[in-house]
Amino acid sequence: MRAMVTPQLGDPGLFEERDVEKPQPGPGEVLVKVVAAGTNPVDAKLRAGAIPGAVEPPAVLGADVSGVVEEVGAGVADLSAGDEVYYTPELFGPGANGAYAEYNVVPAAIVAPKPPSLSHEEAAAVPLAGGTAWEAIVRRLGVKPGQTVLVHGGAGGVGSFAVQIAKAAGARVLATAGSSNQGTLGELGADVCLDYASDDVAGAAAAENGGAGVDAVFDTVGGQMEEATGYTRPFGRIATIVPPEGDLTQLYLKNQTLYGVFLTRERARLDEITTLIERGQVKPLVDEVLPLNEVGKAHERLDSGHGRGKIVLRVSES
Amino acid sequence: MRAMVTPQLGDPGLFEERDVEKPQPGPGEVLVKVVAAGTNPVDAKLRAGAIPGAVEPPAVLGADVSGVVEEVGAGVADLSAGDEVYYTPELFGPGANGAYAEYNVVPAAIVAPKPPSLSHEEAAAVPLAGGTAWEAIVRRLGVKPGQTVLVHGGAGGVGSFAVQIAKAAGARVLATAGSSNQGTLGELGADVCLDYASDDVAGAAAAENGGAGVDAVFDTVGGQMEEATGYTRPFGRIATIVPPEGDLTQLYLKNQTLYGVFLTRERARLDEITTLIERGQVKPLVDEVLPLNEVGKAHERLDSGHGRGKIVLRVSES
Repeated sequence: MRAMVTPQLGDPGLFEERDVEKPQPGPGEVLVKVVAAGTNPVDAKLRAGAIPGAVEPPAVLGADVSGVVEEVGAGVADLSAGDEVYYTPELFGPGANGAYAEYNVVPAAIVAPKPPSLSHEEAAAVPLAGGTAWEAIVRRLGVKPGQTVLVHGGAGGVGSFAVQIAKAAGARVLATAGSSNQGTLGELGADVCLDYASDDVAGAAAAENGGAGVDAVFDTVGGQMEEATGYTRPFGRIATIVPPEGDLTQLYLKNQTLYGVFLTRERARLDEITTLIERGQVKPLVDEVLPLNEVGKAHERLDSGHGRGKIVLRVSES
Repeated sequence: MRAMVTPQLGDPGLFEERDVEKPQPGPGEVLVKVVAAGTNPVDAKLRAGAIPGAVEPPAVLGADVSGVVEEVGAGVADLSAGDEVYYTPELFGPGANGAYAEYNVVPAAIVAPKPPSLSHEEAAAVPLAGGTAWEAIVRRLGVKPGQTVLVHGGAGGVGSFAVQIAKAAGARVLATAGSSNQGTLGELGADVCLDYASDDVAGAAAAENGGAGVDAVFDTVGGQMEEATGYTRPFGRIATIVPPEGDLTQLYLKNQTLYGVFLTRERARLDEITTLIERGQVKPLVDEVLPLNEVGKAHERLDSGHGRGKIVLRVSES
């Protein structure tokens, strides 16, 4: 089968189109024909070797699949050939195989039915970013109606889901992005759209709750943890998908909680997101669709850090 | 009334015995005759000026009172003269007045009935340290039966309560202390007693849960946050009563949660601790009782960082 292989860790120009062996589903696994593959910042980190020991090249990266079940392994009763599915594949360990290929083998337990209203390109934008946003906003931060949440990087892959999920949870949402993405923040439903370069983000956040500060912060950007402890209220919560850095003295003096959130995968969480998608409360933000062999171009964009939603790769016809 | 005053921020030798004005209870407040006052590391930090802006000298410090209600202010219906009570007084702000004095005025809402089975000296060891341990173990870490908790500094003021409360919550408890306090850890109920100087604490913690690591860590000592993220399991929790320092990359990669816990006060939480005390599940660990005018000596011990339970000051006869 055709795959875009990472032959060694390094820059986006290294991807090679290769013919690799088509995987076979073992017990409890399914073989999926990949129609579209999402791209994520974690792919770029893995490609660059920024997470030591996580990937052994040559490797096939890619953390989002939308496709069609082609074959089921022994003992798989809840999926059948022809089912349209979406999920995040196993990226680490001996059986790791990513989405940048025509076929993917995956444990059936982490595969969910694709939201019927979405195209494969739209669905491929969801699993990792939407799942991470759900994990942070719903499960960890526990955002409730009436609360105020600040989302850093609200127009990005994870952030664009987080803004919508926080709104669905009944919160007032402040969100930051660059000047060119202010309109996007508004379309996603943010109540207060902030330009991180020119607006007083800290001041706006600190003014919430009568000057106590926001109830919760979700940081998808990094580099501002110390500042965040200042404009989050006492007993407030901060979640981050980047390593937390800086002086955390205020976190302790203000009885705050810090949640680290990193790539996990499960069917139940995808089913929850599917519900929101089908009810029209969440919509994936797809910036561009490229053919699989232009994955290097997608990674250059990921490396730049200036994303608007997701870049999706078209792998095959559905 | 007699009080041990901190005339300026600095070392333990600065305390002065002074005759200061006896406070009067306003609406919603009660006047309490202080029988015993607890001492806490936070007192030493405040005295030394380690929390900038928190205290304006001359000030009366002291964060634990056990005593007898002498007079109630307007609108106080649930307390009467003669009631034996314990609590943490208001330490910050314009009306701040601490426990190192013959009388204390306090909002009735944060005052709780003293556990009947305890002497005033024992009761004065409880409110701040026991309340902080309850907050960390029960409310923030949410320790459940079957879980494993590591308590750093398990023989100290807060740690000695934390070990007992975690046991009461049904957990397996690993606890650290110096070599001279290993017996104390065992008496408190710790399942695994570790000498922080000579035992492989990280190895013991990492071996729990089949090698995944402990479910939760409560750090009352500091300086080991990065190590703690290593021996705490994925999705595990860490609570700290000292500023968290070090590289927190693993916190994020392992989906862990960090709780900052700092001085708060309330009646409901004291009532919960009273229940455990009266049932014999928690017992305050009083190391020494000194007269009020030897508060400087108590602070020298606090500064040393080598405590075994609490040092309590005898203020007056009950």
